[in-house]
Amino acid sequence: MIPRYARAPMVAIWEPENRFRIWFEIEAHATDALADLGVVPKEAAAALWKWWATKPAIDVAAIDAIEAVTKHDVIAFLTWVAEQVGDEARFMHQGMTSSDVLDTCLAVQLSQAADMLIADLDTLLETIKRRAYEHKLTPTIGRSHGIHAEPVTFGLKMAQAYAEFARNRERLVAARKDIATCAISGAVGTFANIDPRVEAHVAAKLGLSIEPVSTQVIPRDRHAMFFATLGVIASSIERLATEVRHLQRTEVLEAEEYFSPGQKGSSAMPHKRNPVLTENLTGLARMVRGYALPAMENVALWHERDISHSSVERYIGPDATITLDFALGRLNGVIDKLLVYPERMEKNLNKMGGLVHSQRVLLALTQAGVSREDAYALVQRNAMKVWESDGALSLLELLKADSKVNEALTTAQLEDSFDLDYHLKHVDAIFGRVFGD
Amino acid sequence: MIPRYARAPMVAIWEPENRFRIWFEIEAHATDALADLGVVPKEAAAALWKWWATKPAIDVAAIDAIEAVTKHDVIAFLTWVAEQVGDEARFMHQGMTSSDVLDTCLAVQLSQAADMLIADLDTLLETIKRRAYEHKLTPTIGRSHGIHAEPVTFGLKMAQAYAEFARNRERLVAARKDIATCAISGAVGTFANIDPRVEAHVAAKLGLSIEPVSTQVIPRDRHAMFFATLGVIASSIERLATEVRHLQRTEVLEAEEYFSPGQKGSSAMPHKRNPVLTENLTGLARMVRGYALPAMENVALWHERDISHSSVERYIGPDATITLDFALGRLNGVIDKLLVYPERMEKNLNKMGGLVHSQRVLLALTQAGVSREDAYALVQRNAMKVWESDGALSLLELLKADSKVNEALTTAQLEDSFDLDYHLKHVDAIFGRVFGD
Amino acid sequence: MIPRYARAPMVAIWEPENRFRIWFEIEAHATDALADLGVVPKEAAAALWKWWATKPAIDVAAIDAIEAVTKHDVIAFLTWVAEQVGDEARFMHQGMTSSDVLDTCLAVQLSQAADMLIADLDTLLETIKRRAYEHKLTPTIGRSHGIHAEPVTFGLKMAQAYAEFARNRERLVAARKDIATCAISGAVGTFANIDPRVEAHVAAKLGLSIEPVSTQVIPRDRHAMFFATLGVIASSIERLATEVRHLQRTEVLEAEEYFSPGQKGSSAMPHKRNPVLTENLTGLARMVRGYALPAMENVALWHERDISHSSVERYIGPDATITLDFALGRLNGVIDKLLVYPERMEKNLNKMGGLVHSQRVLLALTQAGVSREDAYALVQRNAMKVWESDGALSLLELLKADSKVNEALTTAQLEDSFDLDYHLKHVDAIFGRVFGD
Amino acid sequence: MIPRYARAPMVAIWEPENRFRIWFEIEAHATDALADLGVVPKEAAAALWKWWATKPAIDVAAIDAIEAVTKHDVIAFLTWVAEQVGDEARFMHQGMTSSDVLDTCLAVQLSQAADMLIADLDTLLETIKRRAYEHKLTPTIGRSHGIHAEPVTFGLKMAQAYAEFARNRERLVAARKDIATCAISGAVGTFANIDPRVEAHVAAKLGLSIEPVSTQVIPRDRHAMFFATLGVIASSIERLATEVRHLQRTEVLEAEEYFSPGQKGSSAMPHKRNPVLTENLTGLARMVRGYALPAMENVALWHERDISHSSVERYIGPDATITLDFALGRLNGVIDKLLVYPERMEKNLNKMGGLVHSQRVLLALTQAGVSREDAYALVQRNAMKVWESDGALSLLELLKADSKVNEALTTAQLEDSFDLDYHLKHVDAIFGRVFGD
Repeated sequence: MIPRYARAPMVAIWEPENRFRIWFEIEAHATDALADLGVVPKEAAAALWKWWATKPAIDVAAIDAIEAVTKHDVIAFLTWVAEQVGDEARFMHQGMTSSDVLDTCLAVQLSQAADMLIADLDTLLETIKRRAYEHKLTPTIGRSHGIHAEPVTFGLKMAQAYAEFARNRERLVAARKDIATCAISGAVGTFANIDPRVEAHVAAKLGLSIEPVSTQVIPRDRHAMFFATLGVIASSIERLATEVRHLQRTEVLEAEEYFSPGQKGSSAMPHKRNPVLTENLTGLARMVRGYALPAMENVALWHERDISHSSVERYIGPDATITLDFALGRLNGVIDKLLVYPERMEKNLNKMGGLVHSQRVLLALTQAGVSREDAYALVQRNAMKVWESDGALSLLELLKADSKVNEALTTAQLEDSFDLDYHLKHVDAIFGRVFGD
Repeated sequence: MIPRYARAPMVAIWEPENRFRIWFEIEAHATDALADLGVVPKEAAAALWKWWATKPAIDVAAIDAIEAVTKHDVIAFLTWVAEQVGDEARFMHQGMTSSDVLDTCLAVQLSQAADMLIADLDTLLETIKRRAYEHKLTPTIGRSHGIHAEPVTFGLKMAQAYAEFARNRERLVAARKDIATCAISGAVGTFANIDPRVEAHVAAKLGLSIEPVSTQVIPRDRHAMFFATLGVIASSIERLATEVRHLQRTEVLEAEEYFSPGQKGSSAMPHKRNPVLTENLTGLARMVRGYALPAMENVALWHERDISHSSVERYIGPDATITLDFALGRLNGVIDKLLVYPERMEKNLNKMGGLVHSQRVLLALTQAGVSREDAYALVQRNAMKVWESDGALSLLELLKADSKVNEALTTAQLEDSFDLDYHLKHVDAIFGRVFGD
Repeated sequence: MIPRYARAPMVAIWEPENRFRIWFEIEAHATDALADLGVVPKEAAAALWKWWATKPAIDVAAIDAIEAVTKHDVIAFLTWVAEQVGDEARFMHQGMTSSDVLDTCLAVQLSQAADMLIADLDTLLETIKRRAYEHKLTPTIGRSHGIHAEPVTFGLKMAQAYAEFARNRERLVAARKDIATCAISGAVGTFANIDPRVEAHVAAKLGLSIEPVSTQVIPRDRHAMFFATLGVIASSIERLATEVRHLQRTEVLEAEEYFSPGQKGSSAMPHKRNPVLTENLTGLARMVRGYALPAMENVALWHERDISHSSVERYIGPDATITLDFALGRLNGVIDKLLVYPERMEKNLNKMGGLVHSQRVLLALTQAGVSREDAYALVQRNAMKVWESDGALSLLELLKADSKVNEALTTAQLEDSFDLDYHLKHVDAIFGRVFGD
Repeated sequence: MIPRYARAPMVAIWEPENRFRIWFEIEAHATDALADLGVVPKEAAAALWKWWATKPAIDVAAIDAIEAVTKHDVIAFLTWVAEQVGDEARFMHQGMTSSDVLDTCLAVQLSQAADMLIADLDTLLETIKRRAYEHKLTPTIGRSHGIHAEPVTFGLKMAQAYAEFARNRERLVAARKDIATCAISGAVGTFANIDPRVEAHVAAKLGLSIEPVSTQVIPRDRHAMFFATLGVIASSIERLATEVRHLQRTEVLEAEEYFSPGQKGSSAMPHKRNPVLTENLTGLARMVRGYALPAMENVALWHERDISHSSVERYIGPDATITLDFALGRLNGVIDKLLVYPERMEKNLNKMGGLVHSQRVLLALTQAGVSREDAYALVQRNAMKVWESDGALSLLELLKADSKVNEALTTAQLEDSFDLDYHLKHVDAIFGRVFGD
């Protein structure tokens, strides 16, 4: 976890205190269920909850000190709780194994993290939608291969991002469901020493589903899917960040990250306004994507479990969720405040002497009966002249002057082929598909 | 594609012929829609389908020869089709861009591949289920950290695999839905030169959904999610393969890959029967997992598209699906014919002098009023003797002879703690959860 | 292996025929050594070489047919050779294990591949050097964050690429050394059944070093390092490819991939000249980079070996080397024929009204005694005006008109700060460092 | 950075204080050189060093507070130093750009980290060597595919690890050299505002080599190679850790991680002694390996630099080096204290009724004139009986009783084939190759 790329609420999920609180709730709910089943005295559960009702502080240092001796975190925690609650605490953890607590706790933490990420996506989606409608009909050049192609609108770029992040939201909801399971099934998942009804009770109380069959642990394909999904979301962040970086290039400059008055772009070049936020997002995306691999390698645990996954999850549990949360927040800020320059978009759009309309002329020629090959040749020979003039010549004027073209198309037809609105006529329909309104 | 790790039906999906057939169908359906809209003559569409009805062979070499000149694959294909169909073919591809054809074709190919993989999973699930019920109550030792823990059954191991692959099936169905979209939206996704109804028509005919908003291409987050999902499935394959490899170890030998009579395990050591299929699956899993990364890097295409994703997909489209198909088939064969040795399982189970029952004794002591710490110490001091004897001593006998233990538990209570059925009493319930019957 | 991204000589290394030829040489050299040691008759070795001197064709299909029965590739090969050579061939492979042949063969193949890649790098380095000197003093704008910074030369960009690929060459030479080892040490690496002098003899004949200690196989950290090195080289390819892609953007257009007369950039937009080769290289780099991961996962084989690495190497052995060879060749072609536009570079360089000289003004002010903070403020307030005018205003003129600036610097001093040669004065020195001449 | 997997000296390298100290040294040495060149007053440099000689504490919080305003870390640092040193500090950083400081500092930090890792490897190599000689002739079964093959010694396993980590040391030395370069070349690497002699001076003082040609930054192929090398080392750690995990399996138990008296293996199963350290190392290896990918993606920065690499390096700089340092230390402890059980090794070695000697019998038969195929069949038919008896039958006895075998080999020859020393006769030679003594 890099403080610079972290927000407090997500960090808090991964603090020892939150973990210990979840552990307590798992143990206490389990003790309730055990008491209902007559396995432990009702007083045992009552004593736990009574102490909990005092809103006790969790003494992380004390628990750590015990662990330094026992070299076992759950035993250390239980020992500490027993010191606080007294004799009745000895009924806690009956028939359970450490992993019952650890894995169910991780499920709760990842669910909390997923909820926060889903909220991040919702915020981002709202922001993108607002900018999309704001620039629904702001014309700008569409580019393939970095080369001018045909006109689009800036709103369409936003609509693409919206649709992509809406898909990501759906994927994250599915991934959250995948990891939100509770396993309290004992040392090898047989419920030998604990009734399955304990698991069901704890699951219900914590908002989890039960794990249909576990080993000592919850199977790690669930977590692999979760982290792979975060990797895909990160890749989408990279895509939108890359778009902004391109638009802010000196020669393009169709949009810019917001630049606060006191900000210095460079210690040496005072004029510089750099897209540092989106460059940063590009790097963060690399990290989150990279975490998917160790998560996948974690799946093949030996037999009923080994503990190799644990260290990996100590890293990527916090790192992937905190980084992605930060990145989504930063991306939201970038889009929210993005400076958009419609005049510059128009200027760039017209830069190539009308070449962006070449396909439309090609179609008009074909529809006027010229063969595809001839039409292509006619357009290309004029387009090349414009190209070589670096936009100084006008494609429309050259076509008007081309007698072969004149044989097929009237001047009015030609001029009609250079109409910008022609390209925007379906924007409404696309917005309807994407935003559903 | 490695022929050794490939099955013909999946390979066929990626053959040029299948691609060209899909291209034709996209173009011909689009021409139908264009004809309905009055953009092209009805005869144009009719001519295409008429030719198609003759079940023409696709001359891949001829198309390649044209491409060698034009350096453009779709133009080469259209040119060849025009040579076959005649003059009316010139109305094909009106207002479309190459990517409309390429990306929609890829969607069809990946959908076909996904269907095959889903069928593979169904076959595998059936096989695993059969072996699970066959060995539902075959006791075997559960191991955590590679160390004996408590008894499970071989059927439970199979049930775990079943649940995991059932989840993978569900994920693959979702991933299939993610990539099964049709985009016919023109050079930059604005439908400038083509009516959105064409896209809707082709999508319906090909069993795809429409892409709500595209650029020149279908957004690559869809494909990233697809290949990441294959990576997770591959990791599950690795898990089950690793289990078999462990079980076949000389010292464990609780199960073995089927060994055909003529097979030689080693050029030097004739007694060897090696788990080569599951070792191979472990390697194949590494490959499929590795393909997820380039797929994620493909997401951030520049602006309305660049073509960097294309070469990646030429590799991983076939390689990931063909390898995974082969691996699922091979895994199915391994599980189907797996030699399972219940006697050896029993022998191993009893190997540790009853240590596997230590937790149950611990619980019995606690329930008899001994403190957790004391109970732990009592069990551990006897367990250590058994451990150091390498299983020659019996935990039950030692406990019977321990006066402190006798204070808390009768001989009958002690013997009851060593009952194997105790561990299997919930197997029925777990099977019910997993197999739903 | 994707034929489209493959060149014949590298492909040939991975053909069965080359593999079988290497196998034969290993076996025959080993038989020589065994004969010298008196283990097998001298006639046995002589018979092998006598047959080999007839330059026999390798009947791959026949060998495959035998393997289909034995399910063991080396046994199949030995059987086939024995059929050709006759009775004396039975002395082949004495005391050896399959992996002795397979791993030493892989070492030879990877060495051959490395040699080809080193030659590719040499060719590329020559080409880059030529273009570097050609444009040693062609001024162009240097950009950080995609934003104009200060002048550089196009030759310097080439010099950077040269230095980077020279480092890559050195890394590849080291990686080649790492994998070029011979192991003929028997079933578990103890030389139980074969004298270490056999290994030494074969190693010397094949130009390999001996493997100091092997298991059944050559340790896979060697291969991991090799493929990781290829991944780094691929990343450098991506860097140079990305540079070209940026330079070819419509708004930048300082350089362009060569565009052959017959080439069509788009089926729809005849004016388009897309950087498709470098986009392709970007995708190929993703693939080669991705292969490093499975290679690293291959290291942790179980005990004296398992065979999980084998399938991985069947993919990445050919795929990584063939793809990288193709990519290096393609990159060489791109740089060789790259169209460079110095006029456009100059135009872009002047585009920002002289803002690129702002740092020099800043330094001049500081040296004239103005505090860093004041100097920064003075430059920035004028720079911002130029910036907001989109380069229509001139920084030099604004500074001349700023009375606070005039207090510190004369007009001559100001004008001197806008001299382009100032930025190029160390180019000679840098070229000397890079090219050593 | 996960405190649980971190050691203080490596962590200190990445603390802000170390970074700021390095920054100061870079700036002060550069000021020295600038003073020598007459660019700044000698008093400026003297003032800096005079202050430094007071061993001032670095007030990280104060610097952070300034950065919160300027949003620029180097400017914040320079401002703080100026506050401490006074007016003469304004000559610092003349003609330099932030990246000159940042990248050269990273080179120093990575060099420091590399030195620590090299020392870790040296310690580990010593430990492995000691255990290797201790068990040079301790026989144990060699296994391929997890199946008994032929005898080796435990010392040989250690020798393999030694050779592998010795290679890794050599790789790390090369990787250290790759990243230990100094760049002080200004905003775009042209030395426009700073003399190359400044770079040379700082490089010499800091023990770095000069960067022959830089952009604004040091090229990232260097760092990619460095982190890829760490990934390979991590993979070797995984290999040795996996070996220990296998050896500690209940059924194998030939070695065990040291188990401290107070340690509890399981909250439920008091007899368990789990290989948790090596399982943990397996997970840590996954992390370090995973960091190689983002490092490779960092190579393709845009033009003369973008800042996307920076966030990645904030993670992987500390995370990869701290984790690897911890892992090497932990592995050293594991090997140092590893409990090795020669009796159990012997027991396992004999477990298969002598099957491990089958290859030697095969060779003896061949040398006695039996054809390879017949010999193979003879051995296999007896081996299979032993195999099916689960080691209860003895291969030697069966062979003695096989009349066809008797025709070729005498009883003495047969017995000679079962001699363990036969397998160990070259151990000395191998140790000589590996340890060079």
